[in-house]
Amino acid sequence: MQNYSSKLLEEAVNEFTRLPGIGRRSALRLALHLLRQDGSRSDALGNAIIKLRSDIRYCTRCHNISDDEVCGICSDLKRDGSIICVVEDIRDVMAIENTGQFRGMYHVLGGIISPMDGIGPNDLSIESLLGRTETEEIREVIMALPATTEGDTTNYYLFKKLKDRVATISAISRGVAIGDELEFADEITLGKSILNRILYEKLTE
Amino acid sequence: MQNYSSKLLEEAVNEFTRLPGIGRRSALRLALHLLRQDGSRSDALGNAIIKLRSDIRYCTRCHNISDDEVCGICSDLKRDGSIICVVEDIRDVMAIENTGQFRGMYHVLGGIISPMDGIGPNDLSIESLLGRTETEEIREVIMALPATTEGDTTNYYLFKKLKDRVATISAISRGVAIGDELEFADEITLGKSILNRILYEKLTE
Repeated sequence: MQNYSSKLLEEAVNEFTRLPGIGRRSALRLALHLLRQDGSRSDALGNAIIKLRSDIRYCTRCHNISDDEVCGICSDLKRDGSIICVVEDIRDVMAIENTGQFRGMYHVLGGIISPMDGIGPNDLSIESLLGRTETEEIREVIMALPATTEGDTTNYYLFKKLKDRVATISAISRGVAIGDELEFADEITLGKSILNRILYEKLTE
Repeated sequence: MQNYSSKLLEEAVNEFTRLPGIGRRSALRLALHLLRQDGSRSDALGNAIIKLRSDIRYCTRCHNISDDEVCGICSDLKRDGSIICVVEDIRDVMAIENTGQFRGMYHVLGGIISPMDGIGPNDLSIESLLGRTETEEIREVIMALPATTEGDTTNYYLFKKLKDRVATISAISRGVAIGDELEFADEITLGKSILNRILYEKLTE
């Protein structure tokens, strides 16, 4: 058992270790780094972490992370409100925004259908997506889900639910390597896969 | 420029990125991880970070990290108060304590002499080490500094200052590979290097 000489240090190390990808040695290095810095740095980090979780809000329309009731993308009048890109989580919104290739809206599902993990359609924001097809003028839904079995399952489920509600249902083209997470794709491939999206019917031919 | 959709998220990511070894992608993963967890986890991490820096104290005797005025090692009456092991920083105290081979006291220099980095003897707690040789009954000083040029320079400087004050001056044996940091040595090698320490005079022969 490591002797930290200080309960305060031990507590900080323990808390850092709870984060993904940070072992005890890294946690200690982080804690000692903060001790060498000015106190304002630790205050800034600590308060940013606390405020992030306590004050964060989610857009009531698209479920993207937001500081307001409606996020900056949904409230941007210069964007095309008639196209919704459906993604698994907010990292995918960031990844697609970074390509600069898409000027429509988003809908964050908050996961994908995965019976193995006990995640069914009711655990995702699918009802609110269907609701948007009634309250908004949606001409196309682009499904930008991972190219995995779960992604395919979710695509199929959404297609069945949406096909009588939306004129065009598409899926991003499979330029992204099968099995890869969307967020790790390079921007050019991901951008192209949005531009070259194909009709869902064609995808399953 | 990444669009985080939220100033709160952006701030948290920016603060995480200031930590050593954490890039923007890792920082984002950490922030999103905290968002998925219960709020109590973020509060615990944030407060541990703030309290660590604001409440931490250093032992007035050996400069080890401490929750009290004198650290747990210095106040442990079962330890040998006549041997002081001089180390660069508190990670080295932990590394040596982990070997379970040393039951004396420590003195944390807070660095080593490094003209390249502008660190001279006056930037280190060398005066207080010399003071201890007057107020405490010290029969041996073990120098456990890195096996680098800077470590050798500091060893030599300390030897000159201590040789008329302390009966025995030793240095840990060079079982630790040259150029390696002490904290990355395995416990057996590091423990042996303390047990098999040799007289400084022999080291420079």
